[in-house]
Amino acid sequence: MDEWLKDDERMDYLLNENLRIIQSPSVFSFSLDAVLLSRFVNVPHHKGSIVDLCAGNGAIPLFLSARTKAKITAVELQDRLADMAERSVKYNELEEQIEIIKGDVKTIAPVLGVEKHDVVTCNPPYFLAHEASDKNLKEHMAIARHEIHLKLDEMIYTTGKLLKQGGKAAFVHRPGRLLDIVTAMRANRIEPKRIQFVYPKSGKEANTLLIEGIKDGKPDLKILPPLYVYDDAGEYTPVVREMLYGKE
Amino acid sequence: MDEWLKDDERMDYLLNENLRIIQSPSVFSFSLDAVLLSRFVNVPHHKGSIVDLCAGNGAIPLFLSARTKAKITAVELQDRLADMAERSVKYNELEEQIEIIKGDVKTIAPVLGVEKHDVVTCNPPYFLAHEASDKNLKEHMAIARHEIHLKLDEMIYTTGKLLKQGGKAAFVHRPGRLLDIVTAMRANRIEPKRIQFVYPKSGKEANTLLIEGIKDGKPDLKILPPLYVYDDAGEYTPVVREMLYGKE
Repeated sequence: MDEWLKDDERMDYLLNENLRIIQSPSVFSFSLDAVLLSRFVNVPHHKGSIVDLCAGNGAIPLFLSARTKAKITAVELQDRLADMAERSVKYNELEEQIEIIKGDVKTIAPVLGVEKHDVVTCNPPYFLAHEASDKNLKEHMAIARHEIHLKLDEMIYTTGKLLKQGGKAAFVHRPGRLLDIVTAMRANRIEPKRIQFVYPKSGKEANTLLIEGIKDGKPDLKILPPLYVYDDAGEYTPVVREMLYGKE
Repeated sequence: MDEWLKDDERMDYLLNENLRIIQSPSVFSFSLDAVLLSRFVNVPHHKGSIVDLCAGNGAIPLFLSARTKAKITAVELQDRLADMAERSVKYNELEEQIEIIKGDVKTIAPVLGVEKHDVVTCNPPYFLAHEASDKNLKEHMAIARHEIHLKLDEMIYTTGKLLKQGGKAAFVHRPGRLLDIVTAMRANRIEPKRIQFVYPKSGKEANTLLIEGIKDGKPDLKILPPLYVYDDAGEYTPVVREMLYGKE
């Protein structure tokens, strides 16, 4: 095992014992958002091309590999995270299905092919750039979590470029950005079609937004049933437990 | 009782036995949407000015009178509905608080006063005008339920005109129109601040949207906990029962 890991990295399980992922508490660990988005997005089962932007340590591509045989291209700006993702792909022997590309989302569309892809996913940096300075974050964390190198509009612009007509874009974000997201989606010909709000528990405000749109789709927005992360006893709800650990 | 009623009208209870409302199965009966909006909107308790647009038979003004001492002006286009609302107001001896105005929302802002009001509510015609011809609806119903005489954008334009800076607008609509509503709100300086989705029951898609915005407010959208109308046994949930019948 150790030959796969650097520094304080560890190998965590994904979905029971079927998959492993390299994480590091000081550099990057995937969050529940990646898990939620991986399950929310509609993907083709057998073929097609999926692009995951802002891939981090590759959690979304790895989770998606359990749901589809389509090719998955993952784009990550930071060397260190792209390297972690690359090693996780190799460890899981998924090199045939998942390609990790170290690159900048802002300029990646011509590289990957304009209007060539069926699905684009993104769990983007959440916090506004000006919030980063207030928080004494390490650089890797700051870039991955804040809109320092990539603004929401830029990410959605690239998504629009990558998608075929009829292709699907799915994002996870904070509910407070809902209006900015839907405005940017429409500006880039991605019509919002499905929204699901995620609530930490019953009776609380939503803290996570899942949204999927279709390139050049017709307006017809559905609000899916709410998803709760914890039950009243503070335990993961069955639906979230299954997302994290697979069927038991 | 009969001296208050015309044709097939009947006098229904609102909120236990405190209030009555004149309804008619062939002309107009208020729906749960009016009840939901009346409870959702933030209103001043003691003073201020509230305008209810598309007031129908006056359900929202009547419900609001149980929550506030503020003056309520209700605007309704159709003579017959304005007349029903007027008689309900008199029957409940609420003439001091509620004024029913027969008028057109499109041109009512200068009449009621531009930037003079604290709260505007509206449960507008829902269905697109082209849907009306498909449904063999009586004229009163068609006008009240469809965007024949009033388009969503026109209603929100008038709302923006009526509101003071810092005033609140609250609407009930279908979730499929969410993007049109938030776009029109922002175009008229009303920043969406609170959204609540209403689900017919657990596990179903939302069928109703409640949204409140503040004129010239700062962007900071909250998604409130979901509201369910029926429980798994098909009975009203306690929260909805209380809205309809008051505390028992």
